[in-house]
Amino acid sequence: MNQIDKSAKICDDVVLGNDIIIGKNVYIDHRVIIRDHVTIGDNCTIGANCILGEYQADFYNNRTNSIHPLIIGPDSVIRSGSIIYGDINIGHHFMTGHNVTIREQTSIGNHCSIGTLSDIQGKCKIGDYTRIHSNVFVSQGATIEDFVWIFPHAVLTDDPTPPSEILKGVTIKSFAIICARSLLLPGITIEGDALVAAGAVVTKDVHQYEVVGGNPAKVISDVRKIKNHVTGEPVYPWRYTFKKYMPWEGSDYDTWFNNK
Amino acid sequence: MNQIDKSAKICDDVVLGNDIIIGKNVYIDHRVIIRDHVTIGDNCTIGANCILGEYQADFYNNRTNSIHPLIIGPDSVIRSGSIIYGDINIGHHFMTGHNVTIREQTSIGNHCSIGTLSDIQGKCKIGDYTRIHSNVFVSQGATIEDFVWIFPHAVLTDDPTPPSEILKGVTIKSFAIICARSLLLPGITIEGDALVAAGAVVTKDVHQYEVVGGNPAKVISDVRKIKNHVTGEPVYPWRYTFKKYMPWEGSDYDTWFNNK
Amino acid sequence: MNQIDKSAKICDDVVLGNDIIIGKNVYIDHRVIIRDHVTIGDNCTIGANCILGEYQADFYNNRTNSIHPLIIGPDSVIRSGSIIYGDINIGHHFMTGHNVTIREQTSIGNHCSIGTLSDIQGKCKIGDYTRIHSNVFVSQGATIEDFVWIFPHAVLTDDPTPPSEILKGVTIKSFAIICARSLLLPGITIEGDALVAAGAVVTKDVHQYEVVGGNPAKVISDVRKIKNHVTGEPVYPWRYTFKKYMPWEGSDYDTWFNNK
Repeated sequence: MNQIDKSAKICDDVVLGNDIIIGKNVYIDHRVIIRDHVTIGDNCTIGANCILGEYQADFYNNRTNSIHPLIIGPDSVIRSGSIIYGDINIGHHFMTGHNVTIREQTSIGNHCSIGTLSDIQGKCKIGDYTRIHSNVFVSQGATIEDFVWIFPHAVLTDDPTPPSEILKGVTIKSFAIICARSLLLPGITIEGDALVAAGAVVTKDVHQYEVVGGNPAKVISDVRKIKNHVTGEPVYPWRYTFKKYMPWEGSDYDTWFNNK
Repeated sequence: MNQIDKSAKICDDVVLGNDIIIGKNVYIDHRVIIRDHVTIGDNCTIGANCILGEYQADFYNNRTNSIHPLIIGPDSVIRSGSIIYGDINIGHHFMTGHNVTIREQTSIGNHCSIGTLSDIQGKCKIGDYTRIHSNVFVSQGATIEDFVWIFPHAVLTDDPTPPSEILKGVTIKSFAIICARSLLLPGITIEGDALVAAGAVVTKDVHQYEVVGGNPAKVISDVRKIKNHVTGEPVYPWRYTFKKYMPWEGSDYDTWFNNK
Repeated sequence: MNQIDKSAKICDDVVLGNDIIIGKNVYIDHRVIIRDHVTIGDNCTIGANCILGEYQADFYNNRTNSIHPLIIGPDSVIRSGSIIYGDINIGHHFMTGHNVTIREQTSIGNHCSIGTLSDIQGKCKIGDYTRIHSNVFVSQGATIEDFVWIFPHAVLTDDPTPPSEILKGVTIKSFAIICARSLLLPGITIEGDALVAAGAVVTKDVHQYEVVGGNPAKVISDVRKIKNHVTGEPVYPWRYTFKKYMPWEGSDYDTWFNNK
């Protein structure tokens, strides 16, 4: 039995499975496929050709789609072509680019975004207000806390001695910045306020405020020494200089923090 | 009101919006979605599952698709699965691979190609006869002139102090060569006839004829010293040794240049 | 004339061309497009939105789909969104991730897998039991033997003096391991039991047992010295320590080898 709010607009070529809940004012574009046990919160937009609650191994093994719930929180936008599995819980104000894949046993907090082509391999935990740009590879078991930025083509790995079955996901703590096309080796921890420079190959843990770069990455600076290229003012910790998309967008970080 | 030439062949499962112009002898394959204000020139082929004139932020904000024209010039081939936004003007003889995304406020000249999975983030200017291979990431504000080659998995960045809103796109001048999996930092200029080696992380401007490689990239050679591995002849500037797809394909660069 | 076994289940929105053979117990999900001359072995599952036997240059040139057979062996799973061309022969127990592209004139052995977003550019030869993870770029002319592992975002190149038409594909021999985001330059040979470390830029041939890393890659160890991070036992050659998916899964490599 599906529960679809009357205010939802669903294109007539959408494929609907069973046990689907669709909230108020949801828009589901052409040729979306929604399999079973999918919940879509109020005001969400699901772009064309998306597949929600995509089949997992049990379906390929025996053509039976077991119960793998997918919950997408309200006010989310899933752009066209994205594929999201079940056994996933996503908070509100989530946003994806195009052709994103998110695999099973993953939780994603509120106000997150995941860019075009990014590939979340499953068994991941992503906090609130974390923004992952285009074509980022997040391997299994990654823990990414709140307010983390990951830029295009970054790769997070999980296998210290490939091929093996003893995986060690990466941990990225709140307010860390992982720049474009960097690579994090298995089990690495990136502490908060650290910055991994573009192109870095990170083989060791990175401490708070450290800037690491190169292959293998070495400490090359302290984030507090980095100046804005136009204003000459310090940039980091970025929560004091950047507000867009953030809960302190209307005020500043300290005011928000002290009032929360 | 749509204007569709009678010679166009459009599969009957194609979704058509409004204010669409489709030229002579166009072929539109299964399940293409064409939103509003899209013009497709004569003789184009649009592959299956493509989305043309894809929705932008205004649609997600208020479910209204404002006027964002997309023009695709004649004799172009858009391979299956590609997504092209509006506010884009593309010249003739354009070609894409599969699952390409091209975002808004972008102009692309004549005779260009963009390979499978490449992701053009918008606000970009691409000249004529420029060829971008598979899975290249072109960040916002990039300027890529004529006759530029960009090879697979190259990444062009735009944010000197991420996250910020003061972006500096990359500039790549005519006849430059950007090899596979190289990385260009924000605001970098690559001069004509320069070559960025595979895997390079480019942190400074690159001058004419320079070959740069490594992380961070250093000058490692002069393109004029590079010999073909079979013939032993000089290879660069490549316009004197390579003709395929080029306007001098039937003669040579100087003859073409002197007659144009 | 299509030959479709009565036990095959084909969703009613699937597009079928001509000269298609579909075996017993095949499942073809929503909106798959199967063009002409495609053979799908028994028990295969074809995910939603896949395109099999995708058009090649002749179609774009003259809108005629010449004979380009695609054969997918039995017991294979093609996950949703993948695009496979014709002139391809794939063995049994093949598996793909999502949005994979495989171009023409390619042969793939038995028990292989190719991960999400990987892009096989054609004219490639891939052996048995080889596993290619997410978003790997395999350029034209690559030879990848049996039991090879290639991890996410690895890039195999083919053009020593780009742009040129004298291509030299990469060769990867049986039991080699190519780690995440590594880059192999044109014409390189990686011998069996060698390991290319994550992020390496490989500019020279790599010999048996060598571990290479860095940019440019240098020999940094011998695989036989690498210990498991939990057990402290030697890991390589991996065929003695890893069994999952392998033909010796129920016993051990030597027993399997001596009985085959």
